[in-house]
Amino acid sequence: MDNLVLLPRKELNLRLSRLRSLMAASQQEALLITDNANIYYLSGRVFSGYIYLPLEGMPLFFVRRPVELQGDGVVYIRKPEEMVATIGLNTPATIGLELDTAPYSAIERLRALFPQSKVANASATLRQARAVKTDFEIDLIRQSGIKQERVYRRIPHLYQPGMTDLELQVEIERVSRLEGCLGQFRICGQSMELYMGNVLVGKNADNPTPYDFAMGGEGLHPSLPVGCNGALIRPGDAVMVDMNGDYTGYMTDMTRTFALGQLDELALRAQQLSIDICRELSKALPSTPAKDLYEKAEEMVKAADLHPYFMGHRQKAGFIGHGVGIEVNELPVISPRSRDVLQVNNVIALEPKFVIPHVGAVGIENTYQVTPSGLKSLTNAPTEIITFVQ
Amino acid sequence: MDNLVLLPRKELNLRLSRLRSLMAASQQEALLITDNANIYYLSGRVFSGYIYLPLEGMPLFFVRRPVELQGDGVVYIRKPEEMVATIGLNTPATIGLELDTAPYSAIERLRALFPQSKVANASATLRQARAVKTDFEIDLIRQSGIKQERVYRRIPHLYQPGMTDLELQVEIERVSRLEGCLGQFRICGQSMELYMGNVLVGKNADNPTPYDFAMGGEGLHPSLPVGCNGALIRPGDAVMVDMNGDYTGYMTDMTRTFALGQLDELALRAQQLSIDICRELSKALPSTPAKDLYEKAEEMVKAADLHPYFMGHRQKAGFIGHGVGIEVNELPVISPRSRDVLQVNNVIALEPKFVIPHVGAVGIENTYQVTPSGLKSLTNAPTEIITFVQ
Repeated sequence: MDNLVLLPRKELNLRLSRLRSLMAASQQEALLITDNANIYYLSGRVFSGYIYLPLEGMPLFFVRRPVELQGDGVVYIRKPEEMVATIGLNTPATIGLELDTAPYSAIERLRALFPQSKVANASATLRQARAVKTDFEIDLIRQSGIKQERVYRRIPHLYQPGMTDLELQVEIERVSRLEGCLGQFRICGQSMELYMGNVLVGKNADNPTPYDFAMGGEGLHPSLPVGCNGALIRPGDAVMVDMNGDYTGYMTDMTRTFALGQLDELALRAQQLSIDICRELSKALPSTPAKDLYEKAEEMVKAADLHPYFMGHRQKAGFIGHGVGIEVNELPVISPRSRDVLQVNNVIALEPKFVIPHVGAVGIENTYQVTPSGLKSLTNAPTEIITFVQ
Repeated sequence: MDNLVLLPRKELNLRLSRLRSLMAASQQEALLITDNANIYYLSGRVFSGYIYLPLEGMPLFFVRRPVELQGDGVVYIRKPEEMVATIGLNTPATIGLELDTAPYSAIERLRALFPQSKVANASATLRQARAVKTDFEIDLIRQSGIKQERVYRRIPHLYQPGMTDLELQVEIERVSRLEGCLGQFRICGQSMELYMGNVLVGKNADNPTPYDFAMGGEGLHPSLPVGCNGALIRPGDAVMVDMNGDYTGYMTDMTRTFALGQLDELALRAQQLSIDICRELSKALPSTPAKDLYEKAEEMVKAADLHPYFMGHRQKAGFIGHGVGIEVNELPVISPRSRDVLQVNNVIALEPKFVIPHVGAVGIENTYQVTPSGLKSLTNAPTEIITFVQ
C-alpha cells in the first residue's frame, strides 16, 4: 500500500496554510478540488478523485483511482455522491469549486451535494496560491531547468544538412525524452493544445495560430494548427526552439534561436534587443506591477523601431510573459492590462520575441524566480544565436 | 486570405443536416459551439472562437484567432459578448451549449448572452452526431491506420539489447513523428492525460493508474502516473505497444504485443484469446447492443479461466472498447452497462487485454468500422507476438 500524499508533511502543511489564508480572505469555508494540476499541488501526485479541504480540520482525499492508496483522510469512492456520507451534515456556508476548469455539468453535480452552501470560485484561489512558489517547488523548477539546458546545448549537434523543421524538432524531442522529459504540457483551459513544443523556422513563423502562444506557425495539419509545417530549413532561416521543459511535474519555459547561415541585419538586431530586454526586465524588484515590465519592453522596442515585428507580425500576442509552474499559463501575466504585481517567489517566463518576415522568429525566453534583489534565471543555456554547421 | 471552412461544401452540409435532425429531436433551436474537437468537426480546422448553428439558416463562425480568415458567415470578435450584435434579438427558445466540456464560468458567460433562452446540453448532441462517421471521415481514419501500421511494422527493428521501456518508446515516438504523427491525443474530459501513447513492459503493466485507460503503468513521475517507468526490458517480458495513431486529426487506436525471449504459457494463451475475441466480436452486426460485445468477450474469458487477468489484474478497466474519431473516447462505449447500440459507420476500438503479473500486458487492439456485414478492421499490422532479436 502506497501513501497517497507524496509531499513531505511540512511542505503539505505550508501549502495548506497558504491556501487557507486565501480561503479565509475570500470567505470560503471549504474547497472541493478535482483538477489534476491542483490535485498534484495538494498531494504530490495525480489521482482521480477529489480533495475536500475545510478551513479547519483535516483534508479528505476521496479517491476513485488508482487502487491501493492509503493515509490520513483517504476514502475510496466510486462516484461523487458518496462523499456526502463522509463530509456529513456539517456542510460549509460557502464551498469553493473550480469554476474555471471543471465542466458545467460536473460543477452542477457537485453543487447538488451542498444544497445549503453558496458556491465560490476555487480556481481563482488556487491560482493565487500557486502563483507564489515554495522553496520545494522552486527546487523542482530548477531541476527542470538544468535538464532542459542540457538538451538545448545539444541542439547544434542535432542539425543535419537537408533537414526539415519537423525532422529537427523530432530529434530534439527524442533527446528531451531520453533526458527524462515527461512530455506533459499542462495548460489551464483550452486555449492551447501542444505537447513537446515548437521549432519555428523561417517564414512559417509568420503564420498565425488560433492558440494563445506567443508565436504561431502553420502546423502539420489544420486539426493542430501551430508550429512546424514540414518545410526545409534554408540558408538565412532563423530557427526558434521553444521546447517542453517538464521534467518534474514543474516546467521551465526556455526559447533559443539558431540559424542556418547568416541572418539578415534586422533579425540580428531584434535578437540582441530581446536579450537586452530580458537583461533590463530582470532588474525588476518585488512589488513592481507586471504591466510595467510590458511597458518597459515596449518602450525599448519602439526606441529601436522594431515595433512592427514585436510579438508577431501578421498576428501579435498580447503578452510578453507569464507565470510558470505545474501549468504553463500561471500568474502573474505580463501584459499591458495585467493587474498582477510581482511577488517574491513568483516564477515567470519572459519571452520578448520578434517575427521578421522571410527570416523567421528571433529572440529568447527564460524562466525567472522573483527574488528580493531582482529576477534570477533558472534557464541558463547560451543566449546568442548559434549557427548550424552546413 | 484563407477560407475558414476547409470541408468540402457537400461534406459540411451532410454534417450540418445530421446535427440538425438531432437538434430538432431534442428541441434545440440553436447551438453555440466552442470545443476544439467540435469546431474541427464543423469546419475542418481548429480556430479560437464559436460556431453558432441555428436550426434554420446559415451557420455563423465567430473568430477570435487566427487573423485573416474569410468566408460565408465569418465574423471577427474579441470577446463573446460581441456575438449578440450579429445573432440579434432573434434569440432561440432553447440554446444548446457544451455543458460537458466547457468550464462552468465559460458557460455562465455564454448563458448571459441569451437571457430569454432555455439551455440544453449540446455536448450530448455533438457526441451523438459524431458517433456515426461520414465516408469522408472514415477515409481520414483509414489514412491514419495505414500510417500507424507502417510504424508498427518497424517496431521489431527498433529494439536494441539493453534498452529500457522508455528508450524503446522514444524510438517508436520518433518513427511515428517522422511518419507524420501529429502527437495530438484528443480526449473528451480530464480522465486521461497523455500524448504519444504507451509502451508497457513486464511487471510495470500491473501498476494501477488514475486514468481511464484500459491499461496502467507507473509512469516516469507521479505528476503523470501512467505508462513506461524506465525499467530495463528483460527476457520473458511482454512488451505491449499502444501508440498514438493521429495522422489526420482522426485517430486509429491499435495495440500489438511484442516479447523479449519466450513468454510463459499463460501469457501466450491470453494473447491468443485476445485475438480470438477480436475475431469473434468482429462478426457483430449493426443494431447489436454494445453491452452484448462486452458480455460475449467476458464469456469467452471465463470459459478459458483467464478472468483474473482480464482488463487488468490489481486494477481492472470497466470497458473493452470505445468509439474513436477526432477524440479517443467517443461513442459507442463497449461496457457492461452501455446503452449504446452499434450503428453502421460507428468506428470502434476493441481492446480485450490481459495483465499477467510478472510477464506483463498481452493482447491486441484494432479500430473497426461497423459495416452492414460486420466489423471491418482499419488497423492491419500482424497480430501475433513478434519476438525481439536479443
